[in-house]
Amino acid sequence: MRNKLIYKYIGKVLVGYSFLLLIPFVVGLFFKEFTYSFLICSFFTILLGFLLGKMKTEKKYLYARDGFKIVTLSWIFISIIGSFPIMVDTKISFVDALFESISGFTTTGATIFDNPEILSKSILFWRDFMHFIGGMGVLAFAMAIIPLAKNDKSMYLLKAEMPGPTVSKLFPSIKKTLYCLYGIYFGLTIIEIILLLIGGMPVFDSILISMGTAGTGGFSPLVTSCGTYSVFAKSIVALFMFLFGVNFNIYFLILLKNFKSIFKSEELKVYTGLYLFTVFLLFINSLSLFNGVGEALLNGFFNASSFISSTGYSISNVNVYPTICRIWLLFIMVVSACAGSTCGGFKVARLVLIFKIIKRDIQKMVHPNCVKTITFEGKKVEEETLNSTKSFMFLYIILILLILFVVGLDGLPLETSINAVFTTFGNVGLYFDIPNFNIFSDVSKIAMSLGMLLGRLEIYPIIALLINRKD
Amino acid sequence: MRNKLIYKYIGKVLVGYSFLLLIPFVVGLFFKEFTYSFLICSFFTILLGFLLGKMKTEKKYLYARDGFKIVTLSWIFISIIGSFPIMVDTKISFVDALFESISGFTTTGATIFDNPEILSKSILFWRDFMHFIGGMGVLAFAMAIIPLAKNDKSMYLLKAEMPGPTVSKLFPSIKKTLYCLYGIYFGLTIIEIILLLIGGMPVFDSILISMGTAGTGGFSPLVTSCGTYSVFAKSIVALFMFLFGVNFNIYFLILLKNFKSIFKSEELKVYTGLYLFTVFLLFINSLSLFNGVGEALLNGFFNASSFISSTGYSISNVNVYPTICRIWLLFIMVVSACAGSTCGGFKVARLVLIFKIIKRDIQKMVHPNCVKTITFEGKKVEEETLNSTKSFMFLYIILILLILFVVGLDGLPLETSINAVFTTFGNVGLYFDIPNFNIFSDVSKIAMSLGMLLGRLEIYPIIALLINRKD
Repeated sequence: MRNKLIYKYIGKVLVGYSFLLLIPFVVGLFFKEFTYSFLICSFFTILLGFLLGKMKTEKKYLYARDGFKIVTLSWIFISIIGSFPIMVDTKISFVDALFESISGFTTTGATIFDNPEILSKSILFWRDFMHFIGGMGVLAFAMAIIPLAKNDKSMYLLKAEMPGPTVSKLFPSIKKTLYCLYGIYFGLTIIEIILLLIGGMPVFDSILISMGTAGTGGFSPLVTSCGTYSVFAKSIVALFMFLFGVNFNIYFLILLKNFKSIFKSEELKVYTGLYLFTVFLLFINSLSLFNGVGEALLNGFFNASSFISSTGYSISNVNVYPTICRIWLLFIMVVSACAGSTCGGFKVARLVLIFKIIKRDIQKMVHPNCVKTITFEGKKVEEETLNSTKSFMFLYIILILLILFVVGLDGLPLETSINAVFTTFGNVGLYFDIPNFNIFSDVSKIAMSLGMLLGRLEIYPIIALLINRKD
Repeated sequence: MRNKLIYKYIGKVLVGYSFLLLIPFVVGLFFKEFTYSFLICSFFTILLGFLLGKMKTEKKYLYARDGFKIVTLSWIFISIIGSFPIMVDTKISFVDALFESISGFTTTGATIFDNPEILSKSILFWRDFMHFIGGMGVLAFAMAIIPLAKNDKSMYLLKAEMPGPTVSKLFPSIKKTLYCLYGIYFGLTIIEIILLLIGGMPVFDSILISMGTAGTGGFSPLVTSCGTYSVFAKSIVALFMFLFGVNFNIYFLILLKNFKSIFKSEELKVYTGLYLFTVFLLFINSLSLFNGVGEALLNGFFNASSFISSTGYSISNVNVYPTICRIWLLFIMVVSACAGSTCGGFKVARLVLIFKIIKRDIQKMVHPNCVKTITFEGKKVEEETLNSTKSFMFLYIILILLILFVVGLDGLPLETSINAVFTTFGNVGLYFDIPNFNIFSDVSKIAMSLGMLLGRLEIYPIIALLINRKD
């Protein structure tokens, strides 16, 4: 039975995770908070990890699809375990804690807390640390594990998921790839921390906000999100939100000084284009709503970065934006930023492919006999990839509709429901009109939690988990 | 030049149309309204028709794509001409009149009039007569012209549009097919008129409401739509709205007494299923909102019929329904009823295909090497058809988004904007919260008018018109 081997690997993940659970405990100690929930949680996690790791199995070889099962199950295990300290320390229900925890690990940043400022330092740290861990998980998943699926026939849908250049082409070993990815990830985070410190932000806040930016999460220790920080700090956060939405391959290419390839990157161009258009749209439509041009521009930049990178920090009330901005932002929330980043959403790469498919369809009407291949980032895209991109879009839409239907049962206004579902499925976390997610019923919270996971893992791994392949 | 031949045919269409324009004039005379706008309009139309018909061309043969150009251009010509009497008689702007006229011919039924009861009888008649003409046009287009495209390579996208049995397979000649279709269309309309008269509805109203039902339009002579009619009349309208949403092949099969095929029809089953679910959902969610179970049930049936068939009549304020119903109704608006009916929307047949495609994708994850063909209505569906169904869905979504973006500029609430765009693109006409379409700007009205045409003609013919094939 191969399942045992899967659980063996999950055991290893949990052992590693148990050490991460100690960090918020230590942070708590530093602030003289003697809550032992993280310590106890860590103890049981390492115990569970060891037990799973001790499982006897003769199988040695893992198929790529097993890798996906490991990823999915790990995410679920980690989220459930991570919710316990939140539940115990803040005395909220399990459903609420699980929502907060899944929102953390999926780097969504949708919170159920009215005012995070009343939370303990260890919980505040934990919320953003979950984002940081989640971001690392996404990088490993999107950049190192998915390309592995190339050789597994049953994973044709997944291997087709990430068009464009993948890191694995640069490094033959996963380990080296991951080291390099994490190097960039940590590097950028540390640069952001330093810049925020220079900008006068307190140390604790700098670390939290930077971790939240790196994972494109969006939990803030303050009820005003980033609203009370200096203009310089706000600009830095805005800049880094945008940067963490860029495909990490671009940073590789920068390290390799291959600037020619960077300027050729179609996804980067479209991402930047969408971003600048968003800034422009928000700016133009809010000129009279803010105190002066500078304020409107800063808000435009900050909010555009926050929405497109699926982070979800805010510096003012986003409700001021008129309908046209809301429509566009809903679209941007769902599309989000580049593949191969820590962002959620449908990804710019797939959007580009969808438009190329439509363009070809229309061209076929003019020249019916012409056989045209579609290229992306300078390479031919297989028809199989195109088909699975289309299928992915259907699944995306249908799952959003299904969750919307469940959330709709709460009877809140339609716009609120649409907003909440889009922002969770796209792993954004920021939305209009409503301060937190406690206004939703438990059933809705569970549905949106599932939505965050589906959005984060790009649907297929979760389906792969649900269906049993006969072999 | 083949364009001349196209205009020659449009000339013929216009000559026929000029006679139809005389009917509202005669109706006006009957009610002692001596407005000559229809007469003058008819005169200029016949003149234009003759001029176009006299064009000299050596070409005799029409490609199927020319047929589509004729259909699209005819729809546009007819709508523009049809807007003149409305503009002159009601003294509204050209944009408003064109919106009303396109809403009529596309069988949408979205009105810009606050209170239709102040309109003259001839205009009231014209509004529903446009629905009736539009419905006939749709039938001819969907059931007789599209199948012709089978032999035209350049129309591969269109020929793939109508999966399932087509009428052309039953009759070899288009003329005979059309006669039979129109026989059913007129037959059902006359039965409805008689039943409504029995139900105590005034003659004028019976004719108008029946024509509006037949075309699945939804213009009513009363400000209350169908709200003041008897329960019997309301039930009849509800029943016939549902019936006009059925694929007309089913009525052929009834005439042929081939009941076995009817019970096998997948589209009919799904359509009926969606319909009954809608009735149930509306009923359950409005039990406490109406006076008694009977009222809630009648409203459930009526509104379900009205939304799913894209008609748009109402008998009470649909705003009472809670969010969950609104979400579902938005979905139903976009999907609408069966292919081969007078309904607008994406069509149930395509929805079924999309779900079959997704099902196969997921099955492929389990059995990667299994090659599975998709069947619909007992027949294998070509991969080409599946691909173009997917592409159609993208175009559908993208065009809706584009129009939504334009309408969003008006700054009305998001829900209002979404509702308006969905209801016009799906050719429904009924929507929440807002009494009429005059609240929108001219730019939005033009965008939604285009949306009605795109939705009605299923996008491709309009694109075919815009691109010039080199040959």
